[in-house]
Amino acid sequence: MLEALKEQVLKANLQLQEYRLVTFTWGNVSGIDRDQELVVIKPSGVPYSKLTAADLVVLNLNGEVVEGDLKPSSDTPTHLYLYKQFQMIGGIVHTHSSWATSWAQSGRDIPSLGTTHADHFHGNIPCTREMDAEEIMGQYELNTGKVIVETFQHLDPQDIPGVLVYNHGPFCWGKDALTAVQHAVVLEEVAKMAYHSLVLNPALRPIKDVLQDKHYLRKHGTNAYYGQ
Amino acid sequence: MLEALKEQVLKANLQLQEYRLVTFTWGNVSGIDRDQELVVIKPSGVPYSKLTAADLVVLNLNGEVVEGDLKPSSDTPTHLYLYKQFQMIGGIVHTHSSWATSWAQSGRDIPSLGTTHADHFHGNIPCTREMDAEEIMGQYELNTGKVIVETFQHLDPQDIPGVLVYNHGPFCWGKDALTAVQHAVVLEEVAKMAYHSLVLNPALRPIKDVLQDKHYLRKHGTNAYYGQ
Amino acid sequence: MLEALKEQVLKANLQLQEYRLVTFTWGNVSGIDRDQELVVIKPSGVPYSKLTAADLVVLNLNGEVVEGDLKPSSDTPTHLYLYKQFQMIGGIVHTHSSWATSWAQSGRDIPSLGTTHADHFHGNIPCTREMDAEEIMGQYELNTGKVIVETFQHLDPQDIPGVLVYNHGPFCWGKDALTAVQHAVVLEEVAKMAYHSLVLNPALRPIKDVLQDKHYLRKHGTNAYYGQ
Amino acid sequence: MLEALKEQVLKANLQLQEYRLVTFTWGNVSGIDRDQELVVIKPSGVPYSKLTAADLVVLNLNGEVVEGDLKPSSDTPTHLYLYKQFQMIGGIVHTHSSWATSWAQSGRDIPSLGTTHADHFHGNIPCTREMDAEEIMGQYELNTGKVIVETFQHLDPQDIPGVLVYNHGPFCWGKDALTAVQHAVVLEEVAKMAYHSLVLNPALRPIKDVLQDKHYLRKHGTNAYYGQ
Repeated sequence: MLEALKEQVLKANLQLQEYRLVTFTWGNVSGIDRDQELVVIKPSGVPYSKLTAADLVVLNLNGEVVEGDLKPSSDTPTHLYLYKQFQMIGGIVHTHSSWATSWAQSGRDIPSLGTTHADHFHGNIPCTREMDAEEIMGQYELNTGKVIVETFQHLDPQDIPGVLVYNHGPFCWGKDALTAVQHAVVLEEVAKMAYHSLVLNPALRPIKDVLQDKHYLRKHGTNAYYGQ
Repeated sequence: MLEALKEQVLKANLQLQEYRLVTFTWGNVSGIDRDQELVVIKPSGVPYSKLTAADLVVLNLNGEVVEGDLKPSSDTPTHLYLYKQFQMIGGIVHTHSSWATSWAQSGRDIPSLGTTHADHFHGNIPCTREMDAEEIMGQYELNTGKVIVETFQHLDPQDIPGVLVYNHGPFCWGKDALTAVQHAVVLEEVAKMAYHSLVLNPALRPIKDVLQDKHYLRKHGTNAYYGQ
Repeated sequence: MLEALKEQVLKANLQLQEYRLVTFTWGNVSGIDRDQELVVIKPSGVPYSKLTAADLVVLNLNGEVVEGDLKPSSDTPTHLYLYKQFQMIGGIVHTHSSWATSWAQSGRDIPSLGTTHADHFHGNIPCTREMDAEEIMGQYELNTGKVIVETFQHLDPQDIPGVLVYNHGPFCWGKDALTAVQHAVVLEEVAKMAYHSLVLNPALRPIKDVLQDKHYLRKHGTNAYYGQ
Repeated sequence: MLEALKEQVLKANLQLQEYRLVTFTWGNVSGIDRDQELVVIKPSGVPYSKLTAADLVVLNLNGEVVEGDLKPSSDTPTHLYLYKQFQMIGGIVHTHSSWATSWAQSGRDIPSLGTTHADHFHGNIPCTREMDAEEIMGQYELNTGKVIVETFQHLDPQDIPGVLVYNHGPFCWGKDALTAVQHAVVLEEVAKMAYHSLVLNPALRPIKDVLQDKHYLRKHGTNAYYGQ
């Protein structure tokens, strides 16, 4: 069932280690089959070194397990809610990668300070608002999804394929699981560089819209001219 | 004698290098057999690359060597005192890992600034008070243990499985030697992220108790639902 | 055609990964044959792991492709303009390396703060002025070359073999492609050390001219006495 | 001639790469045979990957080459002067390692902020005064040695086996070449941790003498009890 999707989700999960985005099991990737409305996700707490495609869990969008013997990631309700709200995305990744998490802990958006950022994120990478006690004590993981969607009320998740959850860490997404991981790699790198740039120049402001647009549209959309 | 324990303590010591927590021989791990009240610990100053299970030293809680030809770690009296005072722990690790030691040198507690911290430490990671001249010139390593225990007067060492010794470095513990090393890895990572978050936002305060509790209890205790 | 040059440009491109100067495909190296006035450059968006000498694109200085099936790097107009204006250079490299890009984003020149810098760059490494909207919306990559050349109006590109493009990242050059990459490695290292030195001492000023000259001329020019 | 010494000096030079203390050829190690008053040193500008024991240069303390076809390190006069003035040392290492050089560029001594430092350096690691124009334009490398020795007028180079040369980088020494490299590794690590501790607590003062003494004398001198 969904063998090709499982292989991609497995590969994407293993890339979290290759790209040094995770310590222990602190991350998970999922992918969705939009036709069948089925999600494939990493099981909870399983080390990447032991993970196989057969370990992955298949769920429907109601959160019912359709295939798999293991418990899905504890963050599954966040993933499912994002898939339901962000119709155009095909893969989601959550990590506690060091630089992005440092920003999430600080409560600050990552400003777009250069073309590396602009090449991949069409504007600042937002940090969600703080969740209140009720949201935390209730359906916490579902509410994490809700606060992300709220943050994107006036933003397009295709143009800004990632977010910082306040006091927690990053979620990224993309057209599929592997693209989501690529965005997580970019996020980590721009988080690191923005930190250093701001220490060098605390008064720094985001780059001008015209440069932001130029770089983003050089790589995305109908007039893109980067790559083959 | 205690072959299984020795194998685990050996493995835990070697993990210090794998997780890049040590330079040269600047670290040691021990484990205890609670039934026999015997402690297995790394010998002093032996390089990890040459360490074998047969090199490990076995002592009773009075500090008498029961087996082994080498001198035990110079930090042995600290380990022994902690085993006597913290009855529920089965393994202890001491390192000079870079980020945790930077905090210990600064004399500051590591505040709980995010869910990565909250997942593993149920509150701030305390830094001991400064030891006075008498404590330093007397039974220094024993007194190091005493100042750690003093720091936990009103804290539960199971909930906060690590400490920063003022001007020195971290000690971590856990139900066994391998778990203690895991806590040392987490401590190093949260020390790094807390540093960066505080530079980004010097006014940052610890996360709310409700979020701290939610994450800690998601992974610990009777209502834990993380992992398999 | 130009097989030796292609081999060197290939090797130089692969060194970007070895020296950890690039994430994904965020970098490109070119080399020029001055007799034939032909430039060899990396194709756009091709992963280094799959890059072969046959993939490299050959262009003349008017930007016409003379050989190669792939599209050249999107930064090609910048490279070509620099080759036309800086007659003495034989290789160019562009990356988004982390430390140099952090400086470029901050809009600051990298001051010469020590002999490591002085050994390789004969003075501060300048950051270009900000490009205006017209320059960005027009022939952007060509204009990037123009703003670099403008920055060197009163500087000798042989003595200072690199520049930070404002809000973007570094370009380096040298007598050939491999030397250009060496300069990119040096730039990254001096960018990192200058950052840390300035945090330790924000009032820091560039080193004295006499020390700058001593070290630069120890390695360059007719009185050099470093190396064999 | 001096085969055992050459082997050790070769090994020590290669360790600079293993311990990531050097970029390219930016470092050199020497060792001395005190009986014959002959020094073995790395040749200038030779890559570590190609270095063999036969490439090493043998000189007497007057700087005359006694054996070897290659030019000795350009820093040779500094090494020779230190051997003449510091009679008890048997090996010297110079690098541009990132953290130590960042401190040297900042012009600040590295304060002893913790027991890692105190275990190996019996007090702050001093930064030399700035050299004047005459010293730089004259016998620069010899004068570098002189300014180091001047810095140790009231310090014992056995107790503090390293120094930062202002605007330049670290020199370390020890009873032989391998020990000198060990001190260079320690210096790099304490330089990194002191930086981070000072950012966390800018008002930080060096540790108390009693703790400094306790740790240094735990590892050095007649009452040492660390190791086997």
